[in-house]
Amino acid sequence: MTHDFDAALALQPLGEGRYAGATHPAWANMVGPYGGITAAALLQAACIDPRRIGEPLALTVNYATAVADGPYEVRADAVRTNRTTQHWSLALLQSGVVTTTASAVFAVRRPTWSAAELTCPKAPPAEQVPREPRTPPVAWPQRYEFRFVRGGWPDYRHPREEADSHTLLWVRDDPPRPLDAPSLASICDVFYPRVFRRRGRFTPAGTVSITTYFHADAAALAAQGDRPVLAAAHGRRFTQGFFDQTAEVWSDDGHLLASSHQIVYYKE
Amino acid sequence: MTHDFDAALALQPLGEGRYAGATHPAWANMVGPYGGITAAALLQAACIDPRRIGEPLALTVNYATAVADGPYEVRADAVRTNRTTQHWSLALLQSGVVTTTASAVFAVRRPTWSAAELTCPKAPPAEQVPREPRTPPVAWPQRYEFRFVRGGWPDYRHPREEADSHTLLWVRDDPPRPLDAPSLASICDVFYPRVFRRRGRFTPAGTVSITTYFHADAAALAAQGDRPVLAAAHGRRFTQGFFDQTAEVWSDDGHLLASSHQIVYYKE
Repeated sequence: MTHDFDAALALQPLGEGRYAGATHPAWANMVGPYGGITAAALLQAACIDPRRIGEPLALTVNYATAVADGPYEVRADAVRTNRTTQHWSLALLQSGVVTTTASAVFAVRRPTWSAAELTCPKAPPAEQVPREPRTPPVAWPQRYEFRFVRGGWPDYRHPREEADSHTLLWVRDDPPRPLDAPSLASICDVFYPRVFRRRGRFTPAGTVSITTYFHADAAALAAQGDRPVLAAAHGRRFTQGFFDQTAEVWSDDGHLLASSHQIVYYKE
Repeated sequence: MTHDFDAALALQPLGEGRYAGATHPAWANMVGPYGGITAAALLQAACIDPRRIGEPLALTVNYATAVADGPYEVRADAVRTNRTTQHWSLALLQSGVVTTTASAVFAVRRPTWSAAELTCPKAPPAEQVPREPRTPPVAWPQRYEFRFVRGGWPDYRHPREEADSHTLLWVRDDPPRPLDAPSLASICDVFYPRVFRRRGRFTPAGTVSITTYFHADAAALAAQGDRPVLAAAHGRRFTQGFFDQTAEVWSDDGHLLASSHQIVYYKE
């Protein structure tokens, strides 16, 4: 049986740099699909393109307007291929209208001097953290196993303002699926808007633009397999209808797999 | 007399969404122009475009290949205009070849619930921090006044590895110029590659992609005027030829003006 993640990323070639896809009900958000699955589908188009060299290094996705449930087309333009990097311009269109723009950089990784600087947050092992039993009233969170160490979903029935917006959790696909760059790109967006966490209540909000940097090659992602990754997020400043939040995703042996940043709209 | 920053950003309309510009010798880097001035010029094209609504919210610039000294064309495509946000696709071309791609989001800001979360780093006032007297052997650093609180330019004659890559400095244009979104975008890139700081030595390195989020409206930037801003940067992970670094830029009264993230190539 095809995994829901792979079903959502099934793209059919239509000609050079053009792919047919469709939203998948398993990934529905309140309006249209979960932003993380849209980001993953755009990255996937470049991953499967025969012109592609190297592996994902950077991905920026701009959510220009809502994606409607139904078919879409991905356009993937290999703008520039260098010796070690390749630059892509990507777009998702529905009925000829661009709903989402994106850019991706792929890179050929080589052995170099290496160092970690940011250290992995301390957390009990995933199996010692209870799985979140609640299910939000949309489909996509059911595609993940959430084990919140800190900063779980607010109880909107009892709003309580918080002094910070930090969340730390173990997360993986449900059912489990071996990690790869598209699924990591999707996981980078699993954090609910940090304004909900600060205010302890729901307000209309949505990602405007997300940028993810990949720090692990295919072998390192394969070594992580389908075990939970540790993921942390926090906001910086909330003002005049927009805030930014940063996320880091770690392997279960403490290596930074991805860092991800987004700017988010909120209404009030 | 025109300020060197404004001279570098002088764009001539060529028709809808097309602008003629040129690199400026005052902003030269080792090869081609300083990445920050290229980012600023791309943003400027959308800023001066008659279709523009709102103010800069997000900017991603992908350095696909070196910009050569000489003329260039900026293409600015207003992909989508919503009620409060506007999405732009941008590119810089030389002789018909795309050297740089970019996306920008502009936004109409409205009063909302607001909060700071990240707190401004502690630093002595700018006037108590000595101005860096050294001048690197390229032009663009001479366009800024650097007052390093911590993590100044390494002395490459005496390489020394460091355990972290943090830099904190007061910085402003030289000669002073009132802050605006394009000059803030350029300032976000003033940090030398964090791998130089960690290793205490020079290696070939260059920004592959930079994303900047703006947290201040035109009035807040105007209130900062031409006084130095406080800017901090650090890296996360250095591996297989690439690392990411994050910067934050603060007003001199402690408000976060911009957060900026980049992924950087290094050779060895």
